[in-house]
Amino acid sequence: MVKHVTEIRVRYADTDKMQFVYNGKYLEYFEVGRTELLRGTGLPYAELEAAGYQLPLIEAKVRYRSPGRYDDLLQIEAVVDTLRSAKVRIDYRVIRKETEEVIATGYTEHMFINSETKRPVKPPQMYVDALAPYFE
Amino acid sequence: MVKHVTEIRVRYADTDKMQFVYNGKYLEYFEVGRTELLRGTGLPYAELEAAGYQLPLIEAKVRYRSPGRYDDLLQIEAVVDTLRSAKVRIDYRVIRKETEEVIATGYTEHMFINSETKRPVKPPQMYVDALAPYFE
Amino acid sequence: MVKHVTEIRVRYADTDKMQFVYNGKYLEYFEVGRTELLRGTGLPYAELEAAGYQLPLIEAKVRYRSPGRYDDLLQIEAVVDTLRSAKVRIDYRVIRKETEEVIATGYTEHMFINSETKRPVKPPQMYVDALAPYFE
Amino acid sequence: MVKHVTEIRVRYADTDKMQFVYNGKYLEYFEVGRTELLRGTGLPYAELEAAGYQLPLIEAKVRYRSPGRYDDLLQIEAVVDTLRSAKVRIDYRVIRKETEEVIATGYTEHMFINSETKRPVKPPQMYVDALAPYFE
Repeated sequence: MVKHVTEIRVRYADTDKMQFVYNGKYLEYFEVGRTELLRGTGLPYAELEAAGYQLPLIEAKVRYRSPGRYDDLLQIEAVVDTLRSAKVRIDYRVIRKETEEVIATGYTEHMFINSETKRPVKPPQMYVDALAPYFE
Repeated sequence: MVKHVTEIRVRYADTDKMQFVYNGKYLEYFEVGRTELLRGTGLPYAELEAAGYQLPLIEAKVRYRSPGRYDDLLQIEAVVDTLRSAKVRIDYRVIRKETEEVIATGYTEHMFINSETKRPVKPPQMYVDALAPYFE
Repeated sequence: MVKHVTEIRVRYADTDKMQFVYNGKYLEYFEVGRTELLRGTGLPYAELEAAGYQLPLIEAKVRYRSPGRYDDLLQIEAVVDTLRSAKVRIDYRVIRKETEEVIATGYTEHMFINSETKRPVKPPQMYVDALAPYFE
Repeated sequence: MVKHVTEIRVRYADTDKMQFVYNGKYLEYFEVGRTELLRGTGLPYAELEAAGYQLPLIEAKVRYRSPGRYDDLLQIEAVVDTLRSAKVRIDYRVIRKETEEVIATGYTEHMFINSETKRPVKPPQMYVDALAPYFE
């Protein structure tokens, strides 16, 4: 299992007139979570792209448990718990740091594609190698 | 059942460097779909808010079936198929108009809250009255 | 002079906790204005890109005159008043349709670049040809 | 003069199909810059709002000097160089940390308003007190 925690400060731009974080923003927070998880394994997503791979989403789910608010300091916890599968699944928890309250949970599922042909490919060796140490 | 179809043109701002619509944008497209569905019943969401109600999300799911692209004309189909329940569930299909291809599907679940107290309330009568004719 | 007016409905996603349209959103509204202006001349921006050109911004200015609000129907007026110059300048007015109030004004300045090399090029002939009839 | 530098990592969500940071995003980066400048003086913007003030934009300008790219680490430099004036003006420079290249510059002008009445008020004493030490 690979687990990473990143901090994000809620921007004014992220809020809506309900005074809460806009629902679509959590998918952006999830993005930051998985980007930093990958960087933490020593394989920044930008390197995967430079090597000719992309990792688009095939599915995403968010459960909104408590509203995020302007200027909240959030912890984005991202977890990958399967290494060898055609799909990459990442689970997330968004936690308000001050109160330790879980304000959202969810997951994203991804498939590797060749960035030129945009066709599915199996997880590249550089990805498997970067994550393997966490699964031993 | 209430069903509504709205058209949206994909903006440059909606795309990302993968050349596709950014994954989080679909939740914004869903928003437009349900907003226009409500307007179509004669009850704009702004009136619900003016009457003291808000309708935050409690859950959202998106399945990405095919990439949306810049300048695509999209049809956002929104469907409500249950009238009397504490939760409001809306199902969506996003269709590329030119090719009639379904590029994303998903749903959102909502709960009515009092906009002052931010506490859950049952679906207001004005909402039930607006949608009831479609369920007869 | 080429002038085009497009309508946009303010989304919940566009608002922030101040209850107004977020300041950065106006640049997105300007984008829609110039996209539809180009489409109106018979030359969609997507065709310019397909021909190997891009039109990034070199400068943008917004004056916020009155707040935009959720569900406002806005008219985005876009004007190009010079045809032959290295820079393309577009002026905008954002008008709340119901009250005819000008809520924002501004401009964007652009330069054509070759989409492969990302280097500046002079305005392509297809662009000059599309706009020329409006300057006669 | 008050000056503050904040770091931001460019998100995938921030990019567009031109492979660069979307033009409207810089206004969001400016927001982060001024938010952290205020926090640095000991007066978080959230406290100003809690005290009944808001600070909407009246004008914004961005000059795009070089494209920002995915995963760039950016430094957002924000400067306030006048203390006692009805308008608050903040100047920004966005710098790509790795190359020290200035990729964008600009400013925002703001006016304090009462958050209930939404009417202009003079800069509140708590704001003047927080910034005064930097102008001595």
